[in-house]
Parts: sequence; C-alpha cells; structure tokens
Amino acid sequence: MNAELIIIGNELLNGKISDKNTKEFATFCRDQGINLQRVTIIQDNEESFNSIMSQATKQSDIIVTSGGLGPTKDDLTKKMLASFFNKKIQFSNEALKIVDLQYSSKDRIFDKETSDYQNIPTDFEALLNPTGYAPALFYSFDKNKLILATPGVPSEFKSIINISLKAKLPVLNSKNNQVIVKTRFIPEAKIFNDLCPGLWEKLEKYGQVSSLPNPLGVDIGVILNDSTNRKIVTDIICESSIKENIWHVGSESLEELVVKEAKGKKVTFGFAESCTGGLCASRITDISGCSEVFWGSVVSYANEVKERIIDVNAHTLKEHGAVSLETAKEMAIGAKASMNCDVIVSTTGIAGPGGGSTDKPVGTVAIGFTSKEETGSKIFNFNGNREDLKFRFSQAALFKLLDLIRAY
Amino acid sequence: MNAELIIIGNELLNGKISDKNTKEFATFCRDQGINLQRVTIIQDNEESFNSIMSQATKQSDIIVTSGGLGPTKDDLTKKMLASFFNKKIQFSNEALKIVDLQYSSKDRIFDKETSDYQNIPTDFEALLNPTGYAPALFYSFDKNKLILATPGVPSEFKSIINISLKAKLPVLNSKNNQVIVKTRFIPEAKIFNDLCPGLWEKLEKYGQVSSLPNPLGVDIGVILNDSTNRKIVTDIICESSIKENIWHVGSESLEELVVKEAKGKKVTFGFAESCTGGLCASRITDISGCSEVFWGSVVSYANEVKERIIDVNAHTLKEHGAVSLETAKEMAIGAKASMNCDVIVSTTGIAGPGGGSTDKPVGTVAIGFTSKEETGSKIFNFNGNREDLKFRFSQAALFKLLDLIRAY
Repeated sequence: MNAELIIIGNELLNGKISDKNTKEFATFCRDQGINLQRVTIIQDNEESFNSIMSQATKQSDIIVTSGGLGPTKDDLTKKMLASFFNKKIQFSNEALKIVDLQYSSKDRIFDKETSDYQNIPTDFEALLNPTGYAPALFYSFDKNKLILATPGVPSEFKSIINISLKAKLPVLNSKNNQVIVKTRFIPEAKIFNDLCPGLWEKLEKYGQVSSLPNPLGVDIGVILNDSTNRKIVTDIICESSIKENIWHVGSESLEELVVKEAKGKKVTFGFAESCTGGLCASRITDISGCSEVFWGSVVSYANEVKERIIDVNAHTLKEHGAVSLETAKEMAIGAKASMNCDVIVSTTGIAGPGGGSTDKPVGTVAIGFTSKEETGSKIFNFNGNREDLKFRFSQAALFKLLDLIRAY
Repeated sequence: MNAELIIIGNELLNGKISDKNTKEFATFCRDQGINLQRVTIIQDNEESFNSIMSQATKQSDIIVTSGGLGPTKDDLTKKMLASFFNKKIQFSNEALKIVDLQYSSKDRIFDKETSDYQNIPTDFEALLNPTGYAPALFYSFDKNKLILATPGVPSEFKSIINISLKAKLPVLNSKNNQVIVKTRFIPEAKIFNDLCPGLWEKLEKYGQVSSLPNPLGVDIGVILNDSTNRKIVTDIICESSIKENIWHVGSESLEELVVKEAKGKKVTFGFAESCTGGLCASRITDISGCSEVFWGSVVSYANEVKERIIDVNAHTLKEHGAVSLETAKEMAIGAKASMNCDVIVSTTGIAGPGGGSTDKPVGTVAIGFTSKEETGSKIFNFNGNREDLKFRFSQAALFKLLDLIRAY
C-alpha cells in the first residue's frame, strides 16, 4: 500500500512553525508496513490543492491531509475536498454528536449557531478527534482507496492517526525487518571509504542499506529482504573495523537507552549543567518512567550558582575559568554531594555565538563526571551554531553517562 | 519570485528523523521576499526525482534540493541532477579546492582517491559548504532560473542557504510588511466566533489574515497590502475584545521576549523545575546572551533533591504531595534562597502517561513563583501527551515569568 501526506498551510511555508506531522505519519506508516512515498507542503489555495490531489488520487492508496479544518476563514480544506470530489457540504447528525461529545468532555458547550463543525461533505464520515474539537473527515473512493482529512495541530493529528485511522485500515503485519546499528565518533565517509570499504556492498546482498549521520555518530540500517538473516547482518557490522565505535544495536534513542540501562542496573544519576542549560535533563525527562533513576540537574548558568549550590571553588573559577577541566570536575563532585545519586555528569562550554577566545573557541566543552569508580573530566571541540552545539554537548554528556552506567 | 524545496531522503519518509530544513528555508524565503510555493519530500530514487523536477523546473524560479550529496552509495542527487539536465560528471578543480579548504580547516586531509566530492556535473558550480565537507552544487538554467543542491544535514543546509545561496540572489527588499499580535489563554474559535465576530472581515480589508493556534495561545497575523497601515491594523486588534489576552505585538518568541525584557529591566531570574525537567531552562538558554539575566535552574525531579537543594519541607511533601500549591510555592522560595536572583518560577505537575489520580489527573501542574512583590502558586490543567504537556507546563511558567518581569 502506498500512502502520501499533503500538508496544507501557509504558516509552514512562511517559516512561522515547524512541521511535526511528517515524522508522526512516517513512523505510523513504517510500523504498519505502509510505503509512504511522498509528503507535500502546499499553500492554502484551491489551485495548489487540486493539482496535488489529482496526482495523489492516481498514485496513492491512502491520502492523508493535514491542516485547514479549523474554525477560521483561512481553513479551506473541507470546502476544497467537497469541490474536488464533487460533493455538497451538509449537516451531519453524526458529526454533531462527535463534536458535542468533545466539547462536553472539556466542560464547554458547543454552539452550532456560530460554528460549522457539524457540516461535512456528503458521503464523508466524521471521525472522533480525541484531543481537539474539529472532527476528522474520512472518505473511501475508487473501491479501496481512502482519504483522511485531519486538523494540522500536531497533538490532534497524532491521536487521529493512531486511533481513528488505524481502526479504518486492514490489519497488516507490521514489519519488524530492519537492523539498525548505531556508531559514534567517526564520520560517515571514514566508515565506508576508509575503515570498512567493502561493507556497503556486503550488506546490500541482504537488503536495502542506509547510512544516517546524526550529531556525533552514524546509524547504519539494513531493511532485510529476509528477516531470518537478522543475525548474519548484525554480525557483519558488529565484527567489522568499526566495532569499537558501536554503542547500540536497535532503534532506541540515546536517552531511552540511558534510562533503560540505568533502571536495569538500578543506578541513579543526575547532571550539573552549564552550557547545555537544562537540555540534558530535558532529554532524559522526555522518557516516561525516568523518575525511577533520574534524580535531577543543577543548571548552574551563573558562576554564583556554581559556587552556592554545587560548591565549585571561587578560586578554581578564577584560576582556570568556568570552561575548564577543573571546573567541570568540581561541578560533578559538588552535584553528587548535593543530590546524593550514584552518577553525575557535568557540562561547561561555549555555545556561542559570543564568548569564544583563541584558547577556548566557540564549540569547546568540558565534560566532568563522577561515579563509584571514576571521577574526572575531558575537553571536546565541536562545530555548529548555538542550537547544534547545545545538542552536541548534551550528546557527549549522555554518551559518557551511558558508559558510566554500563561500567556498574 | 517563486521557490520550491525538494527534500530527498528515505530517512524522513520512514520516520527516522524530523525535517528541519523546511523551516529554515521558509524563514529565508520570507525574509528575502520570495514566495515559497511548495515543499516536497521524496524517496531516494530517480523516478520520483525526475517527476518532481519536471514540475519544479516549469513552475519555480528557484529550486533547492536537500539531501543525497554525501559519500555513501544511497547518495544519488549528483547523479540524478546530471542525468536530468543531461550533463556528464567530471573532475572540477574548483570543487577540489573548496573541499580541500574545508578538510584542512578541520585538520583533516582530503583523499581524492577514495572520495568523489571533486567530481561534479558539467556547467555546475561548486559552492562552499561552510560547516561540512560535501560542496553545494549550483546551476543556472532557462535564462534566470536557478537550482541549488545542498546536503541534508540541517547545520550544513542552514549555512549554505544563508551564505552561499544569498550571495547568488539579486538583492531584494526584504518585506517587513506583517503585523503579528500574540494572544494567550483563549481558543481560536472563541476569538473569531464569539468575542470578536467581525474581526477577521475587518482585518481582511488591509491584507491577508491568518490565525495560528499554538500551545496556550493564538497568533493573529496580517500581511499588509500597504505597509503604511501598520498602526491602523495593530490598533484594530489591540483595541478589540481580546485586548486583555494580548501578550505581545511582534514576531519574537516567548523565550526571546523574557530574556529581552529581563535585560531591559535588569531583572535576574531562575527556575525550580520538576515536571518540566529542564525544559524551561533549555528554552531560555537557546537565546544567545541570556547569561546576563538567567541564573540557573534546579531540576529537582526526585523529592530528595527538592528537600536537599531547595529546602522543600518533607512534611509539605508528605501532607500535600509533590504536585501541590504548597510544594510549588516552597520550591520557588527555596530556589530563590539557593540561587540569589530576583525572580523564581517553579513547576511541579504530572506529565504522564502514568502518575495521575482522580484528584490530580495527568495534565495537572502547579506553578509557583516569588519575586520582589509577589509570592504564591496556582494550579492549571492541560491536555496532551507527555511531550505536549511538558511544553505547555513550560509555556505556563514562562508566561508567569514574563508577567513578573513586567511588574518590575
């Protein structure tokens, strides 16, 4: 089955907001074994809509549109859909019930005099929007093709896809046929051209190979032609010249893995963050259930906070500077004493754009750490803008944390 | 001038990563006064590429492609471009120089035996990639249309667009012709159907109106037909029935505004975060220059950390629970004493999916605060999944912080 997503909204094309629905729908399709062949973001006008819909109704079995179902005058999707499929818009008792239900679940009263949610194109079905007001619109055409129109708000899109769309699809075997091996600290070109020159070709015999660079690492993926070859393919990668750089076999993110392994070993941890400014903690707290092992983080952006809460010596700050091996180490030791957990990792660096010097340019970070067996610090240098650097600094800190947890 | 962006990459269509380049390019186009009419994400294959390129070369003056220029075998963009425009791929001394320069700036040596960056399609120009290795490829066709192929890595995409593409464009007057008014705490339907039923039509006389719902608020935008009407349009919105809900006129984000206004008033601030897990601090530290006013955050996820570092009473935690008006208030007071800054806002709530109860369901948050004039706490209830809730909690905290700064 081929699917495509059509995102309708000027606000995405003028840079006001980022699209989050593509990733959601792509993940849904992958898990359902559906081939997502295209995503298109178009402006809110009938000409663009008709042009893309003409292509989509030919080439795709499942078409999902996102956006333009809200209550304001620039929300045109319902009208454009009706016109494209040559339908009238008319009152639907079923739609009214669904909207009423959603309003009353939020202790609000739906006023059908000033609103329009109850009117939908003929032959379309209104589907529950579990997290918002505007119902989703569903229509089946050309025997077994289907179109689903959803609001663009990411939380509403997500719940409609995963609940209402899923219920409309035939049960497919979700394909667990991918090997993912995650590496760190070597660039993509070095892996495939230098360290493992024949690896790609070797893997290609077993399926579709991909290489996905990401901050501080590369994920190597193989979609298997035959899932019984899982072990052979995994072994080929894990026994190659990059074996020392492999940190995980599987699709979990670094933060998921940190929480999972810390739980497995009953190791509690925390951070002392300066340059990452709370990002390490925020990434960990994105993982549900982290509270079992994550104690907290002291975000000590000002030097005064470093001294007051995590006991960094004023002399150390003056002598070596806030971004130094010495400060990073004292931050880790001090935070461990304040928080009373097993492992602490600290970050202090220069995310820029200002604040760099010849000795310590923008991109410099000192990562400190203390655990049962090991206390110390290390300096790294990365490239990028402020946002990239914050993420890379946090990535380096989480890698160190993973290693310390594994050493328990 | 019409532009379009073509993003090439299976990794986006199978949900492995999120697209960040659309927002970057959309913002670039808006600032340059270019009409971005479409963004398409396609799979890594020649059929999809040729189909979209045939449309794009007809309808767009500027075509940017993202992805597929790396060193691995699934990087096909260079080959596909050469084939589409009927060119050969050949050695370019200019490309070699650019790649050499980039390698040496990172203390690495470029090996042209095992790499391919120096070979590009005839008549194409290699452009500097200021943050990566693979050069961007530039080609001008049909008199004044142009195509730019860039790597997909967001930091590389960003620097190539803003430096190398900008240099290739005619100087356009960037259009500062938009009015944006930001509101909070009322839903979109309530604004336009209930409180201000004629507002949309009134604004439409002056330009293109848009309404952008976002967590806890709605941004109302008008792209002016005539920029001398800026004040009239702003006044229409600011004097309407939603005036109490307007928190900003302009395009700045909440975190930008907090930092800017705190600097203006020389007010220092920090957080005590439980349920937001570092997100408040991370949002603030995304803003360059925040260190002048942002002291830090105590992310006290475990109750033990609440007691040890910010002096929350064990009795309060036992009697009222971690998610309570009392705990939120004590967190704020304790963090102010530890950090010694002017204003503290605290968060303690239930982001779920577990941990809710009838009294305190998932989505409940207590926001505490203390400043020169005011100390207290307030409970809110929001909807959404864990990620949405963390963001909404942080949004509520930053709104409170903004109000406290403004009261100085």
